[in-house]
Amino acid sequence: MNRIAKTRHAVSRRGIIAGTVAAAAALAAKPRLGEAEGAGGEALTVPPWETQPGAPVLAAPYGAPSPFEKTVVRRPRAHVEVKSDLSSIGLTPLQNLDGIITPSGLHYERHHAGVPAIDPEAHRLVVHGLVKRPLIFTMDDLARFPTVSRLHFLECSGNTQNWTAGKPDWTVQDTHGLLSCSEWTGVKLSTILDEVGIDRSAKWILAEGADAASMTRSVPIEKALDDALLVYAQNGERLRPEQGYPVRLLLPGFEGNVSVKWLRRLKIGAAPFETREETSKYTGLLPNGKARQFAFIMEAKSVITRPSGGLKLSQPGFHEITGLAWSGRGKVARVDVSVDGGKSWHAARLQEPVLDKCLTRFRFPWRWDGGPATLQSRAIDSTGYVQPTRDQLVAARGMQSYYHYNGIQSWSVAAGGAVSYAA
Amino acid sequence: MNRIAKTRHAVSRRGIIAGTVAAAAALAAKPRLGEAEGAGGEALTVPPWETQPGAPVLAAPYGAPSPFEKTVVRRPRAHVEVKSDLSSIGLTPLQNLDGIITPSGLHYERHHAGVPAIDPEAHRLVVHGLVKRPLIFTMDDLARFPTVSRLHFLECSGNTQNWTAGKPDWTVQDTHGLLSCSEWTGVKLSTILDEVGIDRSAKWILAEGADAASMTRSVPIEKALDDALLVYAQNGERLRPEQGYPVRLLLPGFEGNVSVKWLRRLKIGAAPFETREETSKYTGLLPNGKARQFAFIMEAKSVITRPSGGLKLSQPGFHEITGLAWSGRGKVARVDVSVDGGKSWHAARLQEPVLDKCLTRFRFPWRWDGGPATLQSRAIDSTGYVQPTRDQLVAARGMQSYYHYNGIQSWSVAAGGAVSYAA
Repeated sequence: MNRIAKTRHAVSRRGIIAGTVAAAAALAAKPRLGEAEGAGGEALTVPPWETQPGAPVLAAPYGAPSPFEKTVVRRPRAHVEVKSDLSSIGLTPLQNLDGIITPSGLHYERHHAGVPAIDPEAHRLVVHGLVKRPLIFTMDDLARFPTVSRLHFLECSGNTQNWTAGKPDWTVQDTHGLLSCSEWTGVKLSTILDEVGIDRSAKWILAEGADAASMTRSVPIEKALDDALLVYAQNGERLRPEQGYPVRLLLPGFEGNVSVKWLRRLKIGAAPFETREETSKYTGLLPNGKARQFAFIMEAKSVITRPSGGLKLSQPGFHEITGLAWSGRGKVARVDVSVDGGKSWHAARLQEPVLDKCLTRFRFPWRWDGGPATLQSRAIDSTGYVQPTRDQLVAARGMQSYYHYNGIQSWSVAAGGAVSYAA
Repeated sequence: MNRIAKTRHAVSRRGIIAGTVAAAAALAAKPRLGEAEGAGGEALTVPPWETQPGAPVLAAPYGAPSPFEKTVVRRPRAHVEVKSDLSSIGLTPLQNLDGIITPSGLHYERHHAGVPAIDPEAHRLVVHGLVKRPLIFTMDDLARFPTVSRLHFLECSGNTQNWTAGKPDWTVQDTHGLLSCSEWTGVKLSTILDEVGIDRSAKWILAEGADAASMTRSVPIEKALDDALLVYAQNGERLRPEQGYPVRLLLPGFEGNVSVKWLRRLKIGAAPFETREETSKYTGLLPNGKARQFAFIMEAKSVITRPSGGLKLSQPGFHEITGLAWSGRGKVARVDVSVDGGKSWHAARLQEPVLDKCLTRFRFPWRWDGGPATLQSRAIDSTGYVQPTRDQLVAARGMQSYYHYNGIQSWSVAAGGAVSYAA
């Protein structure tokens, strides 16, 4: 790990940007303003939308983005063949997003048998196994319990397939788009376990989804009694169908797959249930031939979202480098940014609030000199863990670990300003 | 102000809820489970959505709520005649929401000439008047500046029309639905003012929208240099058209109307501009015949969102009382809840994070005895200001103050569980 450089890039914003903007003012034509006095004001033209009534109020009782934003959507990963439209992915367009909240319409998708259309009145959740009182809950039953709300990221363990070389035109949506963040509301799982009364021998919980895959995973009892939630709301409103409507498990900081969507069953047991999704899938084959199983936690990671692959720097001068950092073990303590491919590092500014197991937005002011550059970020979390380089990660895990890639991402800036994937 | 009762309602959840839920389990029929052993498990039926593939992944590149949530939409205020569909309102369904984020599709609407359809490539923002360098900014220009993200509420000063008696069937959407909360991202207004170089005589700024109303308001320079933002993103994505796409002013804690949407012009001046919206409108007529002008700040306020008007308590026993509190002057310091019409008060639990000029979710555990009850909440902010009763508010402001109603809201619970508006 390189030492943090003491010097920061000194960036004087004024002059750089003002020069550009003033030129824009000089080019404007057709003077008009309500008050026809100011020098700048006189150059402002009257756009067509100011000359006619707009769309009626409540034209959209439930609103949608501007038609000018129609390219900001979830997509499959470029250059990866889609073999099934039921067991597949849809990636969040991180390059287009700001802040830390992911709009629910753009939350990433990863399903194993498509998205079920569940009637919440008919949905049931059973909790049984090593319990005193096996119970079946309706959604109304769940709504009776005390609630909590928390902002947490969700990341698929299959996010970021940089084990082998990626494609030069990959965007951050392609590399990191199985990552989203929401405000989740629901009931603590510990509250429900208290209600059914778990046995002292309880060590693992089987969580089963109500989709056609009957998606099942085993959850350690320690996590269930810690910060696990049964979630029915996301960013204020009820869960979206793609995120598990009407109720899902949410295990903050764990690989997304274990936060079982469309939750229909929790079975309390004394040992892991060794389901397909934790034996043949969602394990990591190590160089010694053994596999990492139940490697639940998403380790600290970060990525620069702008500038990033597929974008273009318009001109030399000031540019804000911004991105996201997160850790399944706690809070982000620091993010470092490098513009020279990791030779020197500079502390980025973290946007408050910095929350537990939540995306953290970082920013770094940069003066681009117009020449080639390699942009990188690395996250350090509250446990002191440092996001590894690709080489460090491969040395530890080998090349067969399909899941849990959290190496440092590089974006290459060419002399003309084009930004592209650089592993 | 009543003294805070030292005793809290002792609420034992178990038993109350478990009794109900267990009964539900006994009623279930058609046993089946993957593993046919558990007592509770055997009672779980197989729903149709688990027997067939779901909707394909990426069926909706930009997602939408479940069809079962189609009644959760913005609405006009019940019993208030809609005289214009261009200058009107759409209210946020607070009774259906959880947490503090308002989904952007449900953010309240209040427009004066409908919603313009603005091409961001053609949009311009001019900053002129008492400045060294009048400038016209494109959206690309604005995107070059350093950014910040913050969570803030927005409330229309016309929210909560309880000056006179409301309607018995008014919901919290009717009474408080001109209130929403988002994560906003943009450029500090002070950064842009630094870029144009404001004159020492600058005291007020005229903000003008690019809608057909050319909505204009005057902003004090102190606010502009404090926490004012030029915002282009909301809850991660670009602003929705109804919230000012492609760029709006955001003045945290101020009445919503001054946070001019579709912002096209900022003119720096030495005095307020006395526009229509701050002379004939958006002032408050006091009992002495004078009017409050430029009463920008939304004072501390709170409301119980569940249980609230139009909802029904299903049965006696445990119920969580939950709602929202906010203050235009800072953070929410405390929220008190009363279940006996203000005779006794109990401190509610505040959901972290509690942020500056942001909605704060509060919760209070309540054991309903099945009899009549009157539910109230009152907010106390970080300045020590206490949300007034309706009587206190009317004593200070009289009955002609159309705007800025922040009195304590009562919900009446009848013996059968029906909840209704009670001023």
